[in-house]
Amino acid sequence: MNKKAIFEIVDHTLLNQTSTWAQIKQLCDDACTYHTASVCIPPSFVKQAKEYLGEKLPVCTVIGFPNGYNTTATKVFETKDAIQNGADEIDMVINIGWVKEGQYDLIASEINAVKDACDGKLLKVIIETCLLSEDEKINMCKCVSASNADYIKTSTGFSTSGATFEDIALFAKNVSSGLKIKAAGGIQSFEDATKFIELGANRLGTSRIVNLAKDALE
Amino acid sequence: MNKKAIFEIVDHTLLNQTSTWAQIKQLCDDACTYHTASVCIPPSFVKQAKEYLGEKLPVCTVIGFPNGYNTTATKVFETKDAIQNGADEIDMVINIGWVKEGQYDLIASEINAVKDACDGKLLKVIIETCLLSEDEKINMCKCVSASNADYIKTSTGFSTSGATFEDIALFAKNVSSGLKIKAAGGIQSFEDATKFIELGANRLGTSRIVNLAKDALE
Repeated sequence: MNKKAIFEIVDHTLLNQTSTWAQIKQLCDDACTYHTASVCIPPSFVKQAKEYLGEKLPVCTVIGFPNGYNTTATKVFETKDAIQNGADEIDMVINIGWVKEGQYDLIASEINAVKDACDGKLLKVIIETCLLSEDEKINMCKCVSASNADYIKTSTGFSTSGATFEDIALFAKNVSSGLKIKAAGGIQSFEDATKFIELGANRLGTSRIVNLAKDALE
Repeated sequence: MNKKAIFEIVDHTLLNQTSTWAQIKQLCDDACTYHTASVCIPPSFVKQAKEYLGEKLPVCTVIGFPNGYNTTATKVFETKDAIQNGADEIDMVINIGWVKEGQYDLIASEINAVKDACDGKLLKVIIETCLLSEDEKINMCKCVSASNADYIKTSTGFSTSGATFEDIALFAKNVSSGLKIKAAGGIQSFEDATKFIELGANRLGTSRIVNLAKDALE
């Protein structure tokens, strides 16, 4: 697979707690150079990044991130706030405790409440696969498929592990045809990226791919 | 130091992403048995815990947790929402990127905005010491001392390490006399707890202390 086609589906991502505007600005510049799908950044930088990027590149941010146990009211508020600040895409984390309790109806209605707050923008739903059993992952594929979300996403990058090839294959087998798939966390090489795409990923959340391309130029 | 005096200043804490109500309920029961200062739990469980506990024990929750890079508007909303759901104490995370940028004025005004939303309830400010240099920790001691917050707190328990004896000694040396100190993360034994208290900690965030006492009974 050629690199250009890979860059086009990368959410170029920087979500470290210590990130500064100088680092986020560099991320934006690199994302423009390599024509990625978006930049994925913390909520507190969305306004500044949108002002800086204008219409050059979509700004993606994260909601209820990374632990997912905020109230639905807070997730809805945070989404509206992000959209108002200029966010073009929203990656939310589900309430993982509710999965453990089998409360899939609550999860579905929270996803739809956040989607309503998205004002027509893309919603990706992070299920944090590394904390779920295979049955729970399959149940979440069905739950997100039945919701109004646009994507199901594997990982926050802040728990015990990121996306695996097995998870993407499982998603591809169990989601409805309308739901897209984002692999995130632990994508280390163009070979990894290609394999994730071949298995069914429509988006990749990573900083490594662009940074590898930059390093190759130095 | 006797164990009763230690329990009295423990925020008995469960903040795992996968926690269920059954686990939070058990935490509440144990906190009542051992007469801890509070239970510290995710925002999505505050309402249920408050209904369960009534006035038996204060409910503490976490805001902008654990990464701290939510917008101020979201932190203020999340705090009001938590107070409305019955929270008695609020532990917020600062924007750590703002520390790296030296934007202490922004941090101070965010702390005061959250304190205003607390409706008179206690506010503890988590500075995530493991991600800060010694100078940044001292600057944050001054910044939180000059704010309307009630406590400075070391750690979320979700980053590279928890409280250290050195951090508590540094806090004790650099905070104003009105500001209290909470040590959190990595408190493994009654000996640890005693040493943290001797160094100046007024509260301890841990689940281990109560669990040790329970294990000793079994």
